[in-house]
Amino acid sequence: MPANKQQLLDNRPEGEAVASNFRLVTAQTPELKDNQVLVRHHYLSLDPYMRGRMNDSKSYAQPQPLGQVMQGGTVGEIALSKNPKFAVGDKVVGFGGWQEYSVVDADQPGVLRKVDTTHVPLSHYLGAVGMPGVTAWYGLVKIIAPKEGETLVISAATGAVGSAFGALAKARGCRVVGIAGGPDKCKYAVEELGFDACIDYRQHPDTKSMSQALKEACPKGIDGYFENVGGYILDAVLLRANAFARIALCGMIAGYDGQPLPMANPALLLINRIKIEGFIVSEHMEVWPEALKELGTLVATGKLRPRESVAQGIESAPEAFLGLLKGKNFGKQLVKLI
Amino acid sequence: MPANKQQLLDNRPEGEAVASNFRLVTAQTPELKDNQVLVRHHYLSLDPYMRGRMNDSKSYAQPQPLGQVMQGGTVGEIALSKNPKFAVGDKVVGFGGWQEYSVVDADQPGVLRKVDTTHVPLSHYLGAVGMPGVTAWYGLVKIIAPKEGETLVISAATGAVGSAFGALAKARGCRVVGIAGGPDKCKYAVEELGFDACIDYRQHPDTKSMSQALKEACPKGIDGYFENVGGYILDAVLLRANAFARIALCGMIAGYDGQPLPMANPALLLINRIKIEGFIVSEHMEVWPEALKELGTLVATGKLRPRESVAQGIESAPEAFLGLLKGKNFGKQLVKLI
Repeated sequence: MPANKQQLLDNRPEGEAVASNFRLVTAQTPELKDNQVLVRHHYLSLDPYMRGRMNDSKSYAQPQPLGQVMQGGTVGEIALSKNPKFAVGDKVVGFGGWQEYSVVDADQPGVLRKVDTTHVPLSHYLGAVGMPGVTAWYGLVKIIAPKEGETLVISAATGAVGSAFGALAKARGCRVVGIAGGPDKCKYAVEELGFDACIDYRQHPDTKSMSQALKEACPKGIDGYFENVGGYILDAVLLRANAFARIALCGMIAGYDGQPLPMANPALLLINRIKIEGFIVSEHMEVWPEALKELGTLVATGKLRPRESVAQGIESAPEAFLGLLKGKNFGKQLVKLI
Repeated sequence: MPANKQQLLDNRPEGEAVASNFRLVTAQTPELKDNQVLVRHHYLSLDPYMRGRMNDSKSYAQPQPLGQVMQGGTVGEIALSKNPKFAVGDKVVGFGGWQEYSVVDADQPGVLRKVDTTHVPLSHYLGAVGMPGVTAWYGLVKIIAPKEGETLVISAATGAVGSAFGALAKARGCRVVGIAGGPDKCKYAVEELGFDACIDYRQHPDTKSMSQALKEACPKGIDGYFENVGGYILDAVLLRANAFARIALCGMIAGYDGQPLPMANPALLLINRIKIEGFIVSEHMEVWPEALKELGTLVATGKLRPRESVAQGIESAPEAFLGLLKGKNFGKQLVKLI
């Protein structure tokens, strides 16, 4: 059995996460038991939610245990199989974590899913046609539930969730405005992802300025907002929200490192009869087939061409992850392991 | 035609509302035209939402115009009629404002509704079997949508909305915890309104203390919250909210006078996948018949015995209203005009 390099959570962040929170080790891979398979990971997914799980605080998920392999989504192929449903060479998506190989009890429902790479590149099953894509779909379809012609806004617009959101919203006839960091990302959002406009938050670093930029980009106001960030951007959106606006609350990355970020004026929720709803997509598995079907079609037909930032090798995972938290990635952040 | 004493909004509050914001005048009553009726008001309703309309700011309703009669709900009887559908002596509920009489174009749908006072006292059509009751019903049934056995909390528990909420929630098999100001109101909430517990916010004047009190009163956490107040009480509720809690946002009276009151930690909405939704009951007229039927039955059968604070005479309306904003009322605040 092959040696298996792994990244463990060694200690919890105090404030900002740092590389020394992680520890690289090499483990031996155990022999397979009946119904188990060995998956060789091709790509590891890095996602903002992982930062929240590094804290030892109440959250929707158990905290990432100390001294254990960092958890996370993976795509790869079956390297060895003692399970009749999986053959060597099958491409699979799973939750193998920050390591080169995983041994999986492949009989457990949902832990490993075979995927077809004829029209969709394997890595996209961690992004547009995977958890981030379904996250965008759920927030858009089940919480925002837009009508044709409405104006929608999303923060972190060029990330894995944001790019899928843009394509899904355009397919429903909405005006879609992104918020992203820097002119390159904003140009990409408009020219390649199909956003109608994109606001560079670095040019609008406070509520008043962002609110003004939103007013210009959303002349009819904001009917729906998909929140990945939190903080002053949410405050600015609330100032431009129309009556009966819906806000899907998916991430508040701005507050992961320290003190809670307040919402400046929650009375606006009442004044404009706004709905705001937090969600986590893994609690809504019933929508995944429908969502993945639409997302796969968008990718296969070229209507969604997601961009990827690819770091090389398991050794690079911590730095790539810390970069993601600072918005250094451009599109879906992956680690390529082979 | 009779002389008609009226309370006008003379000028807008700067900070706290004061009696000199209002002006008492006496107007002549115009002769009736065809299809009009003259209503003699028996009771005027005073409600917290009126404070928001005194400000000249964006809100769900147009601001109360300066120099005009303060708007508000009224019950009374037909004093003169040129409308075949209304006879002298008919008891009616309407929106006659802070004055002794109103002339109503009774043909307009919804402006005047005949009510039956056989089992329900006339004044209750401004409270438990009127707008406040339907407000409680909508937030409970359409936003919180409780399951039997869940724990619900409401602020301003002994007011017109709160007392109706308690009865409606008990009828659905929920544990209901009130928040009110002072031992007398808390005793009344438990002993007469049927709340399972009631927290005196004066004994818990900060987030930490209120959160501890909520923990004790809600050993299984909070599944639903009906918000009338805003500020630190909402922060404390969020600290005790269960996963998938629902918050009906009806009023934020704590913030009407001045600076916006922030929400300390909106990330809790995400962590616990909470839904918070602002609403105004007049935008949901479709539920009124169903809600009023249930509320009327609760009152007629003695399961909801709402208390009233009654001020005497149109001259007393401003002081009674200012007292309401400070929680000096005990139950539904009315002004008796005859």
